[in-house]
Amino acid sequence: MARESANAPFLRNAWYIACWDQDLEKGPFARTIMNEPIAFFRDAQGKVGAVEDRCCHRGAALTDGRIVENGLQCGYHGLVFDVSGKCVEIPGQDAIPPMAKIKYYPVVEKQEAIWIWMGDPALADESKIIDWPFHKGGATPLPHKKGMLPFKANYLMLVDNLMDLTHLGYVHSRTIGGNPLQHVNAEMNVERTGNGVKFARWMMESNPPPTYVKAAGFTGKVDRWLEFEYRAPCLVLQYTGAIDAGKGAKQNQNQPGFHSRILHCATPETDTTAFYIFAAANGYRTDDPQATEDFYNELIPTFIEDVTMMSHQQSRIDLDPERPLINIKSDAALVHARRAFSAAYEAEQKLRPQAAE
Amino acid sequence: MARESANAPFLRNAWYIACWDQDLEKGPFARTIMNEPIAFFRDAQGKVGAVEDRCCHRGAALTDGRIVENGLQCGYHGLVFDVSGKCVEIPGQDAIPPMAKIKYYPVVEKQEAIWIWMGDPALADESKIIDWPFHKGGATPLPHKKGMLPFKANYLMLVDNLMDLTHLGYVHSRTIGGNPLQHVNAEMNVERTGNGVKFARWMMESNPPPTYVKAAGFTGKVDRWLEFEYRAPCLVLQYTGAIDAGKGAKQNQNQPGFHSRILHCATPETDTTAFYIFAAANGYRTDDPQATEDFYNELIPTFIEDVTMMSHQQSRIDLDPERPLINIKSDAALVHARRAFSAAYEAEQKLRPQAAE
Amino acid sequence: MARESANAPFLRNAWYIACWDQDLEKGPFARTIMNEPIAFFRDAQGKVGAVEDRCCHRGAALTDGRIVENGLQCGYHGLVFDVSGKCVEIPGQDAIPPMAKIKYYPVVEKQEAIWIWMGDPALADESKIIDWPFHKGGATPLPHKKGMLPFKANYLMLVDNLMDLTHLGYVHSRTIGGNPLQHVNAEMNVERTGNGVKFARWMMESNPPPTYVKAAGFTGKVDRWLEFEYRAPCLVLQYTGAIDAGKGAKQNQNQPGFHSRILHCATPETDTTAFYIFAAANGYRTDDPQATEDFYNELIPTFIEDVTMMSHQQSRIDLDPERPLINIKSDAALVHARRAFSAAYEAEQKLRPQAAE
Repeated sequence: MARESANAPFLRNAWYIACWDQDLEKGPFARTIMNEPIAFFRDAQGKVGAVEDRCCHRGAALTDGRIVENGLQCGYHGLVFDVSGKCVEIPGQDAIPPMAKIKYYPVVEKQEAIWIWMGDPALADESKIIDWPFHKGGATPLPHKKGMLPFKANYLMLVDNLMDLTHLGYVHSRTIGGNPLQHVNAEMNVERTGNGVKFARWMMESNPPPTYVKAAGFTGKVDRWLEFEYRAPCLVLQYTGAIDAGKGAKQNQNQPGFHSRILHCATPETDTTAFYIFAAANGYRTDDPQATEDFYNELIPTFIEDVTMMSHQQSRIDLDPERPLINIKSDAALVHARRAFSAAYEAEQKLRPQAAE
Repeated sequence: MARESANAPFLRNAWYIACWDQDLEKGPFARTIMNEPIAFFRDAQGKVGAVEDRCCHRGAALTDGRIVENGLQCGYHGLVFDVSGKCVEIPGQDAIPPMAKIKYYPVVEKQEAIWIWMGDPALADESKIIDWPFHKGGATPLPHKKGMLPFKANYLMLVDNLMDLTHLGYVHSRTIGGNPLQHVNAEMNVERTGNGVKFARWMMESNPPPTYVKAAGFTGKVDRWLEFEYRAPCLVLQYTGAIDAGKGAKQNQNQPGFHSRILHCATPETDTTAFYIFAAANGYRTDDPQATEDFYNELIPTFIEDVTMMSHQQSRIDLDPERPLINIKSDAALVHARRAFSAAYEAEQKLRPQAAE
Repeated sequence: MARESANAPFLRNAWYIACWDQDLEKGPFARTIMNEPIAFFRDAQGKVGAVEDRCCHRGAALTDGRIVENGLQCGYHGLVFDVSGKCVEIPGQDAIPPMAKIKYYPVVEKQEAIWIWMGDPALADESKIIDWPFHKGGATPLPHKKGMLPFKANYLMLVDNLMDLTHLGYVHSRTIGGNPLQHVNAEMNVERTGNGVKFARWMMESNPPPTYVKAAGFTGKVDRWLEFEYRAPCLVLQYTGAIDAGKGAKQNQNQPGFHSRILHCATPETDTTAFYIFAAANGYRTDDPQATEDFYNELIPTFIEDVTMMSHQQSRIDLDPERPLINIKSDAALVHARRAFSAAYEAEQKLRPQAAE
C-alpha cells in the first residue's frame, strides 16, 4: 500500500474557512494561513476583505489599525487600503503611486463563514463552496454555536482523527467515549466519493446514551446513526442522530428525535500548526437556547482532548516526518481520505507546474 | 531613490548608551549588546567596567558574581577580573597565566549615562560623546527621570519611528496623539547635519494642549515648537516646548513656559531586538518632583505603544527582510536619517575591511 | 594540556539512571534521553519497560496511554505493546503484522532506580550497574529521599561542578558554603581509578558546622571527611561525615556521628539539557523521619543554586562551544574526570565505528 507522509502539503486551490463572521465584529482580525499573515476585515460598507497583514509603507501589521470610511487604515502612519489591496489614501500626499498596493485574497462570506481561497484568484469559483443549510442564509436553519481551537499539528491530522472513530473509546474515555470495543466492532459502511469519502454506522434497536435521553426525551429503544463525510482538503461534515426504533429511520431520518449537525474544518496555519474551526447545530428542543449551549459545552472538552492528542502526536512525527506509519484495519476511511487528498493535490500540481512555492 | 534594508547592520565605531548609572547600584549588571553578553559593574574604587560576561575558566556568567576589593569576582570558582578584563586573582594559586583575561569594552560614565564603544578600542574618542547638559554634571541641570524599554525590532526602527511624527495621530490616538491631520499637514523644517538630520515644527498662536496648560499654567494662546535631531547611529535629541504667544519665541525660546528635553537612544541587542533607553527632563515647575513624575508617567504609555507597533512591524519585516518598502512624502526626515546612517556605516566599512564580523 | 570541548558527546554503552521507581507509580512516564523520547512503565505483572514514546500506527505519544493487562496501551486507537516493544493487540483485527513493533531499551530496576542502557543491547551487562547499598534491596539500607532537577546544560557540566568543590564557597555562600578559602586551601587527596577519579578531604580536630551539631549532637571537636568518586560517564558517589575527634576516624569511619551518602547522576536529555537525579541517605538519627526530611530540604536549595549557575554557564558556552577554557590548579579532579570520560568515549567509538549517530 502506498504510504503518504503524515505531514500533508498545502493544497492551495480550495476554499477554507478562515474565520467566522463573529470574528470580524471588533475590527480587523489577524490570522496566519499557510504561513501568510492575513488581515481580515469588514469595511464600512459591509464588504469582507482579506489582505496581507503588512503595510507596503513601513511593514507595519495592518491588524494594528482600524476601519475607516474607505477601508482598512494602517495604525502606524495612516495609509488606507480597500478590500482589493489597493492603497486609496496616503496622509499628506495626493498622488498614490501604483506600486502602493498589497496582496489580496479572494474571500466569500457565506452562511456565517468567511471562506478564503489561497490559490490562483482566477480559479476561485464561489459555486464550489459547500452549502451548510443549518446556518443563517441556509434553507433549513437550526440553532447553533461556532468556535475555533488552535492545534499544534499538521492540518490533515485532524482529518485523520475524524476518519477513525475507534479513537472515541480511548481519547474520550472520560467524556463521550463509552465502551472502546463497541466502536471498534461496529459495522462501518465506507463509500468513496468524487473528492473524499463518507461513512455511516447504524445501531438499530439500541439503548440511547444518557445524553440523548436528556436531550431528546427518549423513553425506549432507538435507531442511531453516525454519518461522516470528508471533502478534500479540509472539511468533515457530521450528522449524528437517533429516532425511536421501528419508525423507519433508514428510510426517513427526518423525524423528531436527536439530531446534531457538526461542521469541522482544518485550516492550516503553518506546516505543523492549524485551526480547528467548527460549528455545532442541534435539531432538538430548537426553541431552547440552553439546549444549544449544553450541546456546545459537551463538545469542547472532547475537542480539547483531540487537539492535545494531536499535538503530542505531531511532536513525535516531527522527530522524523518521513518515517513510515503502519495502517490497521480500522484505518479504511482514513486511507481513502488521504488518497482523495493526494489525488486533489497531484491534480493541483499538474495544473500549476510553478506551484512548488 | 536608493532603498535601504529595513534591518540596519551594527555600526560599531560609535558610542551607545549601554545603561544608566542607576543600573549599577546593585552589583554587576548583565546586558547583551550587538549579540555580545556584557557584564557592567562599578568596582570598589568607583570605576565603571564593561567586560565579556563569560569567565575564561569554565565559562560562567560573571554577572552571577559580585564586586570584591580588586574587581568583579566570578560566582562559580572565585576568579577576579579588573575593569580591563585582566584576571587579578585565582583562588588557590599564586601565578596568574597571561591567557587568563577576558575581552573588555571602552566605557565612559558621563552625565549619568554609561556609554560603551563596541568597535576598535584604539578609535574610542571620549570627546565624541554628546553633551546632555540637563543631567548631573551638565551645565544646565533639570529635574529628570531615566528609563529603558526592550523592544523586538531592529534598533533603527526606533529612529524611523521618531523621524516621522505623523505616527502620533495614529499610534498615540488614545494618548497624546490629537488630530492626525494636524500632524500630517504641519509645516516641517528639515535640515541635514554632518552626521544626521534635524527638523523643527512651529505652531504659532495656537491653543496649548491640556497637558501643557496643566504643566505650565498657560492662560492664553502659545507659540509651540517640536525640535528633533538624529545623530547617527543611535541618538535622537528632542526639545519640545511652548511660551506665551507674542513674546518672540523664535528669537528666544529660553523664557518661562513649557519646556521638555528628551534623550532617546536605540541600542542594539541582537539583529532584531534592541533597548529603547531614554531620559526625560522638565523645564517647568522645577521645584516640584511631582511634575517630573507626571511627565514621565505620561511618556511611558506612549513609548509602550511605539514598541508594540515596532515589534509587530518587525515580525512582518522578518518574513522577507529584503522586500522593498515604499517611501511617502512624510518620510523626508526618515530618509535623511537612514542616509546619514548608511554614510556612517559605509565609512566604517572602508576604515576596517575586516569589519565583516 | 589537551583540551576537551565543554559539551561532551553522548556515551551510549553505559547504564544511566533514567528515573526512580516512584516515577512509575501513576502510569506511563515520559522522559527524553539523548534526544529520544522514551515511555517508561511498569506493566500489570510488575515488570519495568522502556520503549520509544511513539506508536507505530499513527505516531501518537504512548505516554498518553495507560497500562492494561498485556502491556502499555496507546491512548489514541488502543494498540498494546509489551516491554520488549512488540505489539500484542490491535483493536479490530486478529493478525498482528511483524512490522508492528517499536524500539525498546534494556532497563533494570535495582535498588529503587530504573537504569537504562542507551547503546547496543547486546552489550548491556546488568552486573556493571553499581551497588548502592543504602537503598531498598541493598546490604546496609539507610533512610533516604530521592529527587530530580532538570537543568539547561550539557550533562558533564554537573560532573565538573561536583569535581571542583571550591565552588562551595562562591555558589553556596548563602547556604552551605562557609569560608571560600577554607575550601580552596584544604588538602586534597586525588586518586585516579579504572573508570574515573576519587578524592578525599579530611579536616581533623575541627569545629563541626552547626548543621552537623544539630544533626548528630556533637559536643566537641570532630574529624570530618568529604569523599567523592566519579564513575564515567554519569555517576558521582558522595560520602560526607564526621565523628568525635580522637576516635581513629581514618581507620574506622563506621562509628556513631554524622554520616551522609549522596548518589548524583547526570542523565543527558539533549546535547545541552540534562537531568540531575539524586538520592540522599542519612546515617544519623535513623529512626527519625524528620532527620531525613531536614537533610533533603537543606540540599535542594544548594542543588538549585548549582543548576542555575550551570544554565547561565551553558548559555555562555553556547556562543562558541569550541572556544577554549582555562584550567586552574583546583581543577585537578575535574581534569581527571574529563579524561576518564574521554577515554571511555574513545573506547566506545573504536568498538562501534558506526557510532557517529
